[in-house]
Amino acid sequence: MIKEVFIKKIKDFGANIIPKEDVLAVEEPLEIALKSGNETSTISVTMRTPGNDEDLAVGFLFTEGIIFSRNDLGKTASSSSAENKITINLNPHFDAKLQKLKRNFYTTSSCGVCGKESIEAIKQVCRIPEIRTEMRVNIKHVFTFPGQLRSAQETFDATGGIHASALFDSEGKLTSLREDVGRHNALDKLIGAEFLKSNSEEFFLQDKILLLSGRASFELIQKAAMAGIQVVCAIGAPSSLAVETAEDFGMTLIGFLKNGNANVYCGAEKIQF
Amino acid sequence: MIKEVFIKKIKDFGANIIPKEDVLAVEEPLEIALKSGNETSTISVTMRTPGNDEDLAVGFLFTEGIIFSRNDLGKTASSSSAENKITINLNPHFDAKLQKLKRNFYTTSSCGVCGKESIEAIKQVCRIPEIRTEMRVNIKHVFTFPGQLRSAQETFDATGGIHASALFDSEGKLTSLREDVGRHNALDKLIGAEFLKSNSEEFFLQDKILLLSGRASFELIQKAAMAGIQVVCAIGAPSSLAVETAEDFGMTLIGFLKNGNANVYCGAEKIQF
Repeated sequence: MIKEVFIKKIKDFGANIIPKEDVLAVEEPLEIALKSGNETSTISVTMRTPGNDEDLAVGFLFTEGIIFSRNDLGKTASSSSAENKITINLNPHFDAKLQKLKRNFYTTSSCGVCGKESIEAIKQVCRIPEIRTEMRVNIKHVFTFPGQLRSAQETFDATGGIHASALFDSEGKLTSLREDVGRHNALDKLIGAEFLKSNSEEFFLQDKILLLSGRASFELIQKAAMAGIQVVCAIGAPSSLAVETAEDFGMTLIGFLKNGNANVYCGAEKIQF
Repeated sequence: MIKEVFIKKIKDFGANIIPKEDVLAVEEPLEIALKSGNETSTISVTMRTPGNDEDLAVGFLFTEGIIFSRNDLGKTASSSSAENKITINLNPHFDAKLQKLKRNFYTTSSCGVCGKESIEAIKQVCRIPEIRTEMRVNIKHVFTFPGQLRSAQETFDATGGIHASALFDSEGKLTSLREDVGRHNALDKLIGAEFLKSNSEEFFLQDKILLLSGRASFELIQKAAMAGIQVVCAIGAPSSLAVETAEDFGMTLIGFLKNGNANVYCGAEKIQF
């Protein structure tokens, strides 16, 4: 499932700027509920590409060890009462211990939407910081970011399996870097290190530029927004919801930043060409 | 942080097999607890690369909207009572509403370790299926998998932002494919679709080979193990824990499968050269 958007394609280190249509992989939340007898409980909200939602919900329940065979489901496996919501119908004779499930479901740091039991609440977790400085970023600096990141990374070249997040200052200099097998962990480490160094009553990184070594998903943009970051660059592709969220928060989002080329998805006014 | 392992490097479509040392990015679980006054609660178990654990835990708490400024933490921000466990000390004057947190933390499908409140319990979720057929896979078939996947994928080339999981039969033919912005979702969709088609009391995919379009993490290997899959191929890198888990479950794990080359991390005896 794809979404068409208009972007500014920057080529040859900024020498050429071409407005064009582009396509994004669609990312939207899916609320998964379990129905057992007369009781229905939401057990998960996941960010996914729409399509095959019944497969996704059933596969999730099976691989998490909640259901074990087709017989544990009702004859009609699922119903959908609203867009982006699916209810899986359990066999009335199957005891899924819903209350125990609710207590035991914890989160990992790759869950940007954790703690939000309904889709409506997802965006409310972000306290959008009051922006006090108008950020500007020089495109010539931006094209140096991937090279600076690669020079600073110790593990990537050796294993090919590490994500990185880095912060750059307004002069385009790399000031901080963190690595992890999980892209969300790399960003949490980066933001956490700055948080621990901070003294103020409020913590914002509004004068820093963020570089992500891979793709930009909703959760990563949400984490950046929480920290008041105004400009995010990704070496990989953004999802549709990443772009929508960056737009909502007035952020600049640059993707496919490599080899002197980049796509600007939103917030081009903060870029100096 | 890297781990050295011995692999079989397969080159030139199987013409050359070279035993050699290789390095993996380390992936291990981290249990994050919050201490407020005399109460300590585990709130998350995440799979991460060890190092900067305090940054990770603090960044997670901040980006999830649980703490807001340095003042919300104690003077000593954290303590570590055991390997792979960190306790973040809250300021005694800060009310983090721990009970509410515990109730509200839900999961997404990218959480392979959800529902497990302690590290010890992580591996116990897998009911290792009793293997009834001895799987064998022909290396010539394996080298056709990436091309078959690419031909079958509709969205990838257009957006550059989609993960895929696919199943192949013992003749090396692609039988099922699912795509998603989240790699865990793509695998859950794939397994869920087979689950819904199954009739038996037990559900296992022991005669299928799994291909992952990206990297292989612990969670993906765990999901494959839940479904009884014996052979997993990844186009990207595996993590250390992915390899250890595949070994534990007697699975074959192949990584960096591209351009007629591949690394075999474990279970080489199931491969026919």
